[in-house]
Amino acid sequence: MNGAETLVKTLLASGVDVCFANPGTSEMHFVAALDTHPQMRCILSLFEGGVTGAADGYFRMTGMPAATLLHLAPGFGNGYASVHNARKGHGGMINVVGEHADYHLKYDAPLKGDIEGVTRSVSDWVRVSEDAGSVARDGAEAVRIARSGNGRIATLVLPANTAWEGADGPAEPLPPVRLHRPRPDQIAAAAAALREPGAALFVNGPALHGRLAELAGKIAATTGCRLMTDLFVPRLARGAGAVDIECLHYPVLDNVEILRDVRHMVLVGAGQPVAFFAYPDKPSTPERADCRMLDLCSPGMDIAWTLEALVTETGAAEAEAARIPLDLPELPDGPLCPETVGQSMAALMPEGAIVCNEAITAGHPIAQATRGARAHDWLNNPGGAIGAALPLAVGAAVACPDRKVIAPTGDGSAMYNLQSLWTMARERLDVTVIVFANRGYQILRGELANVGVREVGRNAERMFNVEDPELDWVALAAGHGVDAVRVTETGDFIARFADAMSTTGPRLIEVAFDPALPTD
Amino acid sequence: MNGAETLVKTLLASGVDVCFANPGTSEMHFVAALDTHPQMRCILSLFEGGVTGAADGYFRMTGMPAATLLHLAPGFGNGYASVHNARKGHGGMINVVGEHADYHLKYDAPLKGDIEGVTRSVSDWVRVSEDAGSVARDGAEAVRIARSGNGRIATLVLPANTAWEGADGPAEPLPPVRLHRPRPDQIAAAAAALREPGAALFVNGPALHGRLAELAGKIAATTGCRLMTDLFVPRLARGAGAVDIECLHYPVLDNVEILRDVRHMVLVGAGQPVAFFAYPDKPSTPERADCRMLDLCSPGMDIAWTLEALVTETGAAEAEAARIPLDLPELPDGPLCPETVGQSMAALMPEGAIVCNEAITAGHPIAQATRGARAHDWLNNPGGAIGAALPLAVGAAVACPDRKVIAPTGDGSAMYNLQSLWTMARERLDVTVIVFANRGYQILRGELANVGVREVGRNAERMFNVEDPELDWVALAAGHGVDAVRVTETGDFIARFADAMSTTGPRLIEVAFDPALPTD
Repeated sequence: MNGAETLVKTLLASGVDVCFANPGTSEMHFVAALDTHPQMRCILSLFEGGVTGAADGYFRMTGMPAATLLHLAPGFGNGYASVHNARKGHGGMINVVGEHADYHLKYDAPLKGDIEGVTRSVSDWVRVSEDAGSVARDGAEAVRIARSGNGRIATLVLPANTAWEGADGPAEPLPPVRLHRPRPDQIAAAAAALREPGAALFVNGPALHGRLAELAGKIAATTGCRLMTDLFVPRLARGAGAVDIECLHYPVLDNVEILRDVRHMVLVGAGQPVAFFAYPDKPSTPERADCRMLDLCSPGMDIAWTLEALVTETGAAEAEAARIPLDLPELPDGPLCPETVGQSMAALMPEGAIVCNEAITAGHPIAQATRGARAHDWLNNPGGAIGAALPLAVGAAVACPDRKVIAPTGDGSAMYNLQSLWTMARERLDVTVIVFANRGYQILRGELANVGVREVGRNAERMFNVEDPELDWVALAAGHGVDAVRVTETGDFIARFADAMSTTGPRLIEVAFDPALPTD
Repeated sequence: MNGAETLVKTLLASGVDVCFANPGTSEMHFVAALDTHPQMRCILSLFEGGVTGAADGYFRMTGMPAATLLHLAPGFGNGYASVHNARKGHGGMINVVGEHADYHLKYDAPLKGDIEGVTRSVSDWVRVSEDAGSVARDGAEAVRIARSGNGRIATLVLPANTAWEGADGPAEPLPPVRLHRPRPDQIAAAAAALREPGAALFVNGPALHGRLAELAGKIAATTGCRLMTDLFVPRLARGAGAVDIECLHYPVLDNVEILRDVRHMVLVGAGQPVAFFAYPDKPSTPERADCRMLDLCSPGMDIAWTLEALVTETGAAEAEAARIPLDLPELPDGPLCPETVGQSMAALMPEGAIVCNEAITAGHPIAQATRGARAHDWLNNPGGAIGAALPLAVGAAVACPDRKVIAPTGDGSAMYNLQSLWTMARERLDVTVIVFANRGYQILRGELANVGVREVGRNAERMFNVEDPELDWVALAAGHGVDAVRVTETGDFIARFADAMSTTGPRLIEVAFDPALPTD
C-alpha cells in the first residue's frame, strides 16, 4: 500500500466521501488510489475555482467537509478566490495539493512554486507530508481540523514521492477539536443585555438555520430583542415557517439607519458588522458610537451550547420564535426586471429550494420578493470574491440531490467560474441558473459615482461595460452542454422558470433586461 | 492631485502605457485617474488570469512591462497562475492591487485577505504604499524593478485611501538596476569549454531571438559546440532564417538521450535543464553524471554583455550562425490530426507570425512541422500552469498589432482562461485560435500509465475525459463574440486556416480529431 492509498482510505474512514478534483501529473498516484476506491465520489471541474467553490457549497449544506484535489501552487492559486469565500463563511474543506517529489524541489522545474506561501495565505492549517508513512496521519489530522471550529480550511500538501512510496496503512479518524465556550458570567451579562431596550442578538453561521435558528428565535421572542444577521451569510433558512431574522443591507449608510436604535448588540457566531468597503467620509462600521458590543461567542466557538445557555438563562425554552408567514405573490405582468423575476421566483420556487445568490445589483430586489416564498435556503457570498454562485450550486446540488438548486447571478460575476456549467451537465445536477444580463459591472458605475466622478470617460466606461461584444449566455451554456434560453419578457421568464421548476437537470435562463429599469 | 493620479502619471512618464485590468470597488479612484489619462490604453479582461497572462505576452514581445489592475487578494489569486508562468519565463509586469483603506483593515470585511502573503508567494518585489505621498515613488520603483534583471514581477499594493488622499505629484522615472556580469576568468573558462568535444551552449530568455540569438549562433559556429535550449521557452525565433537552436523534449528520458554526448554545458540566460516532473526510477535532470555544468550567466544577469564577451573571447565576430532553411511542406491531404494541422500551418503561416503554443499532446507534431515555415516567433509556457495560450495571444496581439497571432491550444488547457476570447473580440485583436479537441486531458492518460496503472477505472476515466458532455468550442467562442468553426477534415482546416491568415480579426477553429490517430 502506498501513501496515496492510505490517504484515500483514511478520508473514507473519516467520513469524507466526495472529492472535487482538477488533478495533474503530480497527483497521478492519488488519482490511481481514487480509481480503486469507487466509494469516493470524484467530481471533475474544468477550472479550480469550480473545485474549491463546490467544496464550499457542499459543506454549507451538509456540515461535512469535502476533499479537493489540486495541482501544485498554480492549481491552488486558481482555486484561491473560492477558498477565500469559504473561509470568510467559516466553511470547512480539505485541500489535497500535489507537489513535486521532495528531492525534485531543489531544481527549478516549471511548476515549482511557493506552495506553502500561497496555501498559508488563505488556509487555517497547512501541512506538507514528510514521508509516505506520515500521509495517513496527516490526512486524519486534516479532516479533524476541517471539522473543528465549525469549519476550517485544511490544506495538505502531498509531495509526489510521499504518494507513491510504501506506507503501513490508513489512520484512525480523529475527533474534532473541542469548541470553546463563553464563561457563565458572560452568558448572564448577555442575557441581561438582551432584555434592555435597543438590544439586538446578532447571529451568523449555524445559528441561521435549523435547530439553532429556532433557539435564537426563542431568545428574541422572550427577551424582546431584535434578531439580526449580516447580508452576506453562508446559509440562511428563509421563506414560510423560517425563523424571522432581519438582514443588514449592502450600503453602510443604510445599515447606520437600520442600527440607529441598537444600544446593546450581542454577537453569537458572528463577527462585528463592518462596511464592505471603506469610503471617504463614511464610517467603517455601522453601529452607534455608544453601542455596547458583547462578543459572546465568536464564529469558531460553541454556538449551539451558547444558544442553549442563553435559552436557559432567559427562560425561553417554551417561547415561540417569530416566523416568516407564507406570502406568495401573484405572477407579475410588468416589464422584465429584477423585481418581476423575483416575484416569479417567489411564486414558483418549490419547497426546499436552495438559492445560491450572486445577483449583485439584482440581488436586493429578488431577496425582498422571495422572503415569503415556500421554505428555502439562501446562500450568499461571505467573501466577496465574485464567481461564487455557479460553483456553490454544484456543491449544493451534489450535497442535496433531492432539492432544487437555483443560482441567480450577475453576468459579470458568472464569467469568473463559468466552467462550472460543464460540471452541472456532467453530473446531471438539478440546477437552474438565472443570469441577469445587464451587460456590465453595474455595481462599479455606482461605486465610481460614490467616489465623486460624474462624467464617465472612455477608459472607465470600457472597464464597466461588457456590451461590445455582448456575451451570449445561451451559446456559453450550450458550449458547456447546458440547455439555455434567453428571455426578454416577464411572461417568457415565468414560462421558462416554471418549466425548470417542474423538471430536473441543469438549465440556464438569461434574463436580458434594460438596466435602466428600477431595481430599488 | 490624489495618489492614484500621481501613480498613473508616473507610470506614463516611465513608459508604461498599457494597463490590463479587472478592477473592483477598491480600485475606483485608480479607475477615475485612468479615465482622465486616455494615453494609457486600458484593456478589460473578464477574468484575472487573462489580465496577468496578457501582461506576460505583452512583455515577451516588447521587453516592456505592462501594468495590471487587480482587486484585492482574491483578484490577485485569480491571476496567480499566469503570474507564475510569467515569472518562470523571467517576464516583467507591474501588478497594481487595490487593498482596503488602511484604517479599514482592522475589521474583518469580506474581501480582507492576506494580500502580502499571496502576492509575495509569486512576486519578486512587493510594496504596500504607506500613504498617498509615497504612491508615485513606489510606482516608479515598481517600474524600475519590473524592468530589472531582464524582467521581474513587481507588485504594488495600493490601500484605497492612499489612492484617494492628496499627493504632491508624479515621480521621475528610475533606471533599471544594473545587471551583474560574469568575471573575465569565467568568460575564458566558458570559451575554452565550448571548444571541447561534447560541448553545448545552453541559452534562454533574450538569447533566443534577435541580435542575441545571432551572437549565440556565431559562438556555436566558431567553437563547434551545440546550441541548445529548453522546450518551454518564453519566446524563440523560428522558421526560415532564424538561428538554428536545438530544443529539448518533454520526456526526461528523451532528453537523457539528446544530451548523451554532452560533457561540457555552458548556461547563458538559462537555468540547468530539469525534468518537468519527477517519476519513480527516472532522473530529475537529464545530463550525464560526469557533465561539467558552467553556470556562466543566470537569467537575471547581463546576457547581452556575456554573449558579446564570448564572441570576443572565441573570435566569432565574423562567423556565420547556422540558420534554419525555408522548408515549406506541401498542403497535406491525410486525415485531420496534429501532423496535418502542423503541415497546413507551416505552409500558410505568414512571415512574422507569433505562435502562442499550448497544444500539449499536439504540441510536438505542430512544432516539428512548422520548424522551416516562414520566420515567426514561438511562445511556449515556461511555468506549466495551463491556460496560457489565450491570454498570451491577447498580450502579443496588443504588443504587435501588425503581426498575425496564432494560438494552438488543447481543449483542456483552453478552458482555464477562455474568457480571454471576449477580450480578443472587444479589442479586435488579430488572433487565430486553434483548439485541438481531443476531448480530455490526454496527457494525463500517459502519465497514469507512467505510474504503472494499466486498467483505467471509472474515477480516473471521469477525471481525464471531457466527453460527457462534449465541449462545443464553436458555441463557446460565439458566446464570447468570436467567430468560430469546427473542422473534421484536413481540407476543411486548410480552407479555414488559409482564410484566417488572409483576413484580420479574432476567430477560432475547433479541430475535432480522433485522439487515437498517431501524434508522434
